[in-house]
Amino acid sequence: MTEPDHGLSFPTSLGTSTADEIRLLGQDLTADLMGQVGFGELAFWLVALRRPTPGETRVFEAVLVALADHGFTPTAIAARLTYLSAPDSLQGALAAGLLGGGSRFLGVTEDCGAFLHEALQRHEGDLPTDDAGWDALALEVVAEAKAAKRYVPGLGHPVHKVQDPRTPVLIGIAAEEGLRGPHLRLFEAIGRVHEQVLGRRLPLNGAGVCGAALADLGLPVELLRGFALLARAAGLLGQLAEERRRPIGMDTYLTVDRHAVYVDPT
Amino acid sequence: MTEPDHGLSFPTSLGTSTADEIRLLGQDLTADLMGQVGFGELAFWLVALRRPTPGETRVFEAVLVALADHGFTPTAIAARLTYLSAPDSLQGALAAGLLGGGSRFLGVTEDCGAFLHEALQRHEGDLPTDDAGWDALALEVVAEAKAAKRYVPGLGHPVHKVQDPRTPVLIGIAAEEGLRGPHLRLFEAIGRVHEQVLGRRLPLNGAGVCGAALADLGLPVELLRGFALLARAAGLLGQLAEERRRPIGMDTYLTVDRHAVYVDPT
Amino acid sequence: MTEPDHGLSFPTSLGTSTADEIRLLGQDLTADLMGQVGFGELAFWLVALRRPTPGETRVFEAVLVALADHGFTPTAIAARLTYLSAPDSLQGALAAGLLGGGSRFLGVTEDCGAFLHEALQRHEGDLPTDDAGWDALALEVVAEAKAAKRYVPGLGHPVHKVQDPRTPVLIGIAAEEGLRGPHLRLFEAIGRVHEQVLGRRLPLNGAGVCGAALADLGLPVELLRGFALLARAAGLLGQLAEERRRPIGMDTYLTVDRHAVYVDPT
Amino acid sequence: MTEPDHGLSFPTSLGTSTADEIRLLGQDLTADLMGQVGFGELAFWLVALRRPTPGETRVFEAVLVALADHGFTPTAIAARLTYLSAPDSLQGALAAGLLGGGSRFLGVTEDCGAFLHEALQRHEGDLPTDDAGWDALALEVVAEAKAAKRYVPGLGHPVHKVQDPRTPVLIGIAAEEGLRGPHLRLFEAIGRVHEQVLGRRLPLNGAGVCGAALADLGLPVELLRGFALLARAAGLLGQLAEERRRPIGMDTYLTVDRHAVYVDPT
Repeated sequence: MTEPDHGLSFPTSLGTSTADEIRLLGQDLTADLMGQVGFGELAFWLVALRRPTPGETRVFEAVLVALADHGFTPTAIAARLTYLSAPDSLQGALAAGLLGGGSRFLGVTEDCGAFLHEALQRHEGDLPTDDAGWDALALEVVAEAKAAKRYVPGLGHPVHKVQDPRTPVLIGIAAEEGLRGPHLRLFEAIGRVHEQVLGRRLPLNGAGVCGAALADLGLPVELLRGFALLARAAGLLGQLAEERRRPIGMDTYLTVDRHAVYVDPT
Repeated sequence: MTEPDHGLSFPTSLGTSTADEIRLLGQDLTADLMGQVGFGELAFWLVALRRPTPGETRVFEAVLVALADHGFTPTAIAARLTYLSAPDSLQGALAAGLLGGGSRFLGVTEDCGAFLHEALQRHEGDLPTDDAGWDALALEVVAEAKAAKRYVPGLGHPVHKVQDPRTPVLIGIAAEEGLRGPHLRLFEAIGRVHEQVLGRRLPLNGAGVCGAALADLGLPVELLRGFALLARAAGLLGQLAEERRRPIGMDTYLTVDRHAVYVDPT
Repeated sequence: MTEPDHGLSFPTSLGTSTADEIRLLGQDLTADLMGQVGFGELAFWLVALRRPTPGETRVFEAVLVALADHGFTPTAIAARLTYLSAPDSLQGALAAGLLGGGSRFLGVTEDCGAFLHEALQRHEGDLPTDDAGWDALALEVVAEAKAAKRYVPGLGHPVHKVQDPRTPVLIGIAAEEGLRGPHLRLFEAIGRVHEQVLGRRLPLNGAGVCGAALADLGLPVELLRGFALLARAAGLLGQLAEERRRPIGMDTYLTVDRHAVYVDPT
Repeated sequence: MTEPDHGLSFPTSLGTSTADEIRLLGQDLTADLMGQVGFGELAFWLVALRRPTPGETRVFEAVLVALADHGFTPTAIAARLTYLSAPDSLQGALAAGLLGGGSRFLGVTEDCGAFLHEALQRHEGDLPTDDAGWDALALEVVAEAKAAKRYVPGLGHPVHKVQDPRTPVLIGIAAEEGLRGPHLRLFEAIGRVHEQVLGRRLPLNGAGVCGAALADLGLPVELLRGFALLARAAGLLGQLAEERRRPIGMDTYLTVDRHAVYVDPT
């Protein structure tokens, strides 16, 4: 490859650079961003292509803080075991941990945001204005989900069986910042009414409320899982730092290996 | 597995939870952290096990902002191509992008921090107090590296051949916050004196100054690559959001595939 | 962790070892497997828990050979770019390449096998005995898919627009080995009749016929993607070996980067 | 991107295709390879760019069989935990397992092959012709490694403390096929003499003998880890198939999580 081909063109609004200047999002990286913009703020901006307000940043970072680490999750353990096997490749251990960020343990944030978003889009132009209205809409939405044998994401938690402590706190922060929007309103209403349809009372979980809050910030619902992954990247770094200081990977491996029991496959 | 085995014990200082409460780093997640602590602040805390000061947070976030996105890097392109092939797995595309965070394109931050750290440890208890002293130490360090045929990390940049604009800005931010410590001082001195040893003048690059600044914050040098990866995770989310809006993955693939030329292996 | 906990038990039929012996699948690894069993044969056995016959091995390996490498695919390019960035971590480059093995570029094998399997299960106990019967069933299946607005996997190919050369060859090999079973029969019938329903003639593609053949071997349809990934692992090794000998990663990166065009996001 | 740029050129000796034909390694995929060439044979060919002889194929596949699965290794557990968290992404679980294929648990094959290769290159043109000669060379090589405080790869095993059963079997297979070359000869000699230098007798381990055998096949020593990864890909498929049938991921996670003990970080 020698000369540029003027027929080729790869458009971007993100980073570009010349010998003297680095630009990002149309800003001068060193004059406008470094030291002036927080990391969470930049992460929001990179996806939404607009700088969040201070209130939006506070809600957004509260979500990232809420999702960063949940202790010895399967993904944290997978990252630590990978680091044990390949300590020369921190990026591999981090990637292994993130690869567990799929449908079951990290997908609720996205599923919940998308579920609420879809329901709101179906009723666009006709959204409720008070709690009674939201309750009516929530009833309809939960009943539709039940009829279609779809599960309602964001309901229930294996540990926090009565209330997930993150839920009221995140709603409170969003309210303080004037950002308790339709996704959160509908999610709260689902929390009030789902028992009438489903026959049992489940808590609104933290992963779900995070999805609702992110959707209210106007972030694209197809990428909400990405923010959970970003939050988890910080948590996994903490897990790997701890694995260096006080390892549990070898004990985890030996615990499983020493209790292996051979089962005849036939 | 039914009953807990009281002989097993997996220690952690990170996340734990009960039915009512979620704790992280010894704090109550909802009362002490959400809405009170920024995301960058938490990331620092998770690794260092201490809450950074506001000045430390500013320097730390300036580093993350500096490293978040560099446009169409090999890792950004790899993430976009992976997303093109497997759009159902955002975590896979993000992981693919991070896997390029190895020795060549993302390793300079860690290599530079570690190089400086090691030099400072060899002279512990005898560190310079003025620029002349730092220059003398830098001369010694660069000469030793040359003699050992080791390269000095943090010198030179393929695009910013005279000066990397990030370098003076990050040093300035660290100075404003009273955090221009020995790693940065030594790095600056290397910038002043290396020409005497190596015979040509190279700029101090941005990845290197980020490593020096992180090391001055007291973060473990063996994990500095991890912060570059965290920063890059945000940048990759931006890249993947853009790939959804204005894709370049298919054109990249077709550009390569259509210009494939078969070469007889024999 | 000191003593084993007799309450814990992790069952497996795969590898176990003692000081003197290594067992795998209930066999003595060194006496029964090494030098006696081919690698493809073992891969089949590891998933199916039974040793394939020579005929099954031949069909199975023909599938793996068919899927191993397709030149400069997005996944091959992603692996090479990752190797360029992190040459110290071959496992990372290989993993990055495999992560593109998702729904779009590598999923057809599994989707096709699963689609055929489901159709056959719905008509279990009532399967056709001649081509006319298979055609009737295929008509029904394609019409149902069209009515449900589902796509029929295995039809069409961006390059092989008339016929995919792998399709008749793999069917021929299966026939030679007496392994042209119901999945392949139904797939062939879909090839004959789909035009009546869909209004245009599409070729049966190679990824699809591979899925049909694997399903006829009795392999679990939920894991068919795994065999495509195994095949691709060999292809990616070839790509990475070539990247060492005659690299294209840097040129790919530079081609994209040099043709980057900044687009104002607002 | 519209028209090809004739200045661009991406050379390859691997897969290419036209509307009618798929070529791989200069062969017609369907006429020359499918049904004619085994999968292991093709994997060798893809890296070495030459078709292995039947004897080479037998040794090569014996190595892959030896390395495919070792039961509940850290990488197998990491893959299973990732599958538990993200069952929708088999490629992610497989990739997570391979990411543990680094220096500690899977690197010995490559390290050993490279160590032997380097020693042989230093004595090229002057290689021993009998066991006494190999012993003398081995003594020199082990003494040099000790003097340089380098470890000798391929010595010792945590479980097979006296003899690794794979070692004599693989040497035997190589001898049967006339492929017991200089890497294996030197490795065997190291097994005989190292005690004189290191002061204790260690077994030649299976990962090491596999590296020696692969190097004797003329495969590039910088890529030997890649064959271990390919072998492991088959083993991981077996582990994931078993995780579907008889899961241990959830129990592993719960075992760790339920025995978490909070440690004050200060």
